[in-house]
Amino acid sequence: MAIGEFELIRRFFKRPPLRFDVVEGIGDDCALLRPQAGKCLAMTMDTLVEGIHFLPGTNPENLGHKSLAVNLSDLAAMGATPTWVALALTIPQPDENWLTAFANGFKSLADFYGVELVGGDTTRGPLSITVQAMGVVDEVGSLKRSAARWGDGIYLTGDLGLAGLGLEILLGKTSKKSPEAIAKLERPQPRVNAGMSLAGFANACIDVSDGLAADLSHILNASGVGATLDWIALPLPSAVRQYIESEGDEWMPLMAGDDYELCFTVSREREDELPGLMAHFDCSCVRIGTIEQQMGLRLKKDGGIFDLAALGYQHFPTSK
Amino acid sequence: MAIGEFELIRRFFKRPPLRFDVVEGIGDDCALLRPQAGKCLAMTMDTLVEGIHFLPGTNPENLGHKSLAVNLSDLAAMGATPTWVALALTIPQPDENWLTAFANGFKSLADFYGVELVGGDTTRGPLSITVQAMGVVDEVGSLKRSAARWGDGIYLTGDLGLAGLGLEILLGKTSKKSPEAIAKLERPQPRVNAGMSLAGFANACIDVSDGLAADLSHILNASGVGATLDWIALPLPSAVRQYIESEGDEWMPLMAGDDYELCFTVSREREDELPGLMAHFDCSCVRIGTIEQQMGLRLKKDGGIFDLAALGYQHFPTSK
Repeated sequence: MAIGEFELIRRFFKRPPLRFDVVEGIGDDCALLRPQAGKCLAMTMDTLVEGIHFLPGTNPENLGHKSLAVNLSDLAAMGATPTWVALALTIPQPDENWLTAFANGFKSLADFYGVELVGGDTTRGPLSITVQAMGVVDEVGSLKRSAARWGDGIYLTGDLGLAGLGLEILLGKTSKKSPEAIAKLERPQPRVNAGMSLAGFANACIDVSDGLAADLSHILNASGVGATLDWIALPLPSAVRQYIESEGDEWMPLMAGDDYELCFTVSREREDELPGLMAHFDCSCVRIGTIEQQMGLRLKKDGGIFDLAALGYQHFPTSK
Repeated sequence: MAIGEFELIRRFFKRPPLRFDVVEGIGDDCALLRPQAGKCLAMTMDTLVEGIHFLPGTNPENLGHKSLAVNLSDLAAMGATPTWVALALTIPQPDENWLTAFANGFKSLADFYGVELVGGDTTRGPLSITVQAMGVVDEVGSLKRSAARWGDGIYLTGDLGLAGLGLEILLGKTSKKSPEAIAKLERPQPRVNAGMSLAGFANACIDVSDGLAADLSHILNASGVGATLDWIALPLPSAVRQYIESEGDEWMPLMAGDDYELCFTVSREREDELPGLMAHFDCSCVRIGTIEQQMGLRLKKDGGIFDLAALGYQHFPTSK
């Protein structure tokens, strides 16, 4: 079946207006949006490429979900309330079933958080998805990477290592089975409510997309501080613990990406307010370490202190 | 040479702050932007894929220019003043020379219009560029496709058909030579000043990216009107006239895309104000036809009236 570009947008992605602040949505040269007076606009953009960020044959509904989720996660990491989103979809050829499923995954998540798809582009080419998401946040309450302070507690939402385990399973590198790990990899839940609740409360915040070690290192470098993580405090699900035990790959939860949890720091004197705030989270949250004056990232484990190089996942390796 | 992702952004694309309304630019989870009070935010997003929107081996500086130009053109077609831009760049591998040239082309155009690159993503994969651009416009002055009225004059900035000729030349389909045609295809000049000047003055406006016949048809369909174009009034450069004469391909200027001129309509009673306004344009501008009550798009040529089907360029053909 061949579909014209305009029909494709109309048929699979256009829907009744959702938000009062969208003056013009899909269909003109630009979307027209009414920003909230006195607020900052938070903007992020992420691309998922087949074969790099997801395996060929990935369930299109999950892909629609994930392509939006990773951007909502960036907004959450800034403390922003998501508002509008644009989608640039490049596909080899229009396939009705694939598009229906992709649009369903995308729209379900957008609806859940009241985010409106206001624009984008559909083009022919190798499968690739770029999503640009916008949100609003008070300038003073926004969560910047550079705001961690010596003595801050380091916190992590949800759990760690499941997405990494999911990837190992899909790549056939382990014989373990774990539907929850596959689900975490393919349908990450962005911590939108946690991020919104943390605005004006947490100091620094980042979302864990490239691995906890790499992402926390961004906070440390931007803030000019160091940290020690406590292995025993890391929220490792039992499937991840079993994987580590049987495969001996103990660094995986720190190095693997795609968990899309929030890692944030809280001033020592405000840490006792956090449990009350967590009532508004959509997930659990635990203290995993402390910000220190001494630069670098360290791990307390089995009575010793290990130095963690900030490796994580980079799209272009720095060494061949 | 292998380059890390963060180094790539820092080295090729990061630069000193340009605008006072950028609170946070590249480097955090999100950019933070300060929208202008009482204004609408105009947002557009366009993807260029190698082999679909540009030929393999295209000069990277031109590509950097064009990927931004096509988005500034969409903002101009809405009457918006461009402010911020985000870039999602997918490249097979980081090549220093290519990236330097691409960034130069992109940044030169951005600087020319005072637009700041505030975010984006770099990923590995088949060459593809998605740009998302934002601007500001008064809600009441914005130029919508649906606002053409019976009796309006139809105007076109610049010239028509050169980009189409450029593509014919690059594809080896004609033996004509025309450096200006190649330049128009590879380095289109977005009509930013014209668009800004037309806000609050023109009725409907669109940029000619898919071909004049197709794009004007979008205005006609959205506005519930028809139009007749006057062949003799079309601003065809001599290279295009010569091509038509020698190849007999007389519909090319109406069907070929990529000219990135503005096509707009003006109420009959305001047409005599237009020459004064044009002093602020960055290009010429001529009257090419009239909006009519009778639906459809017609062409007056050689004493006859021809019906023009709204074909133009679509990424997914509607018929096989």
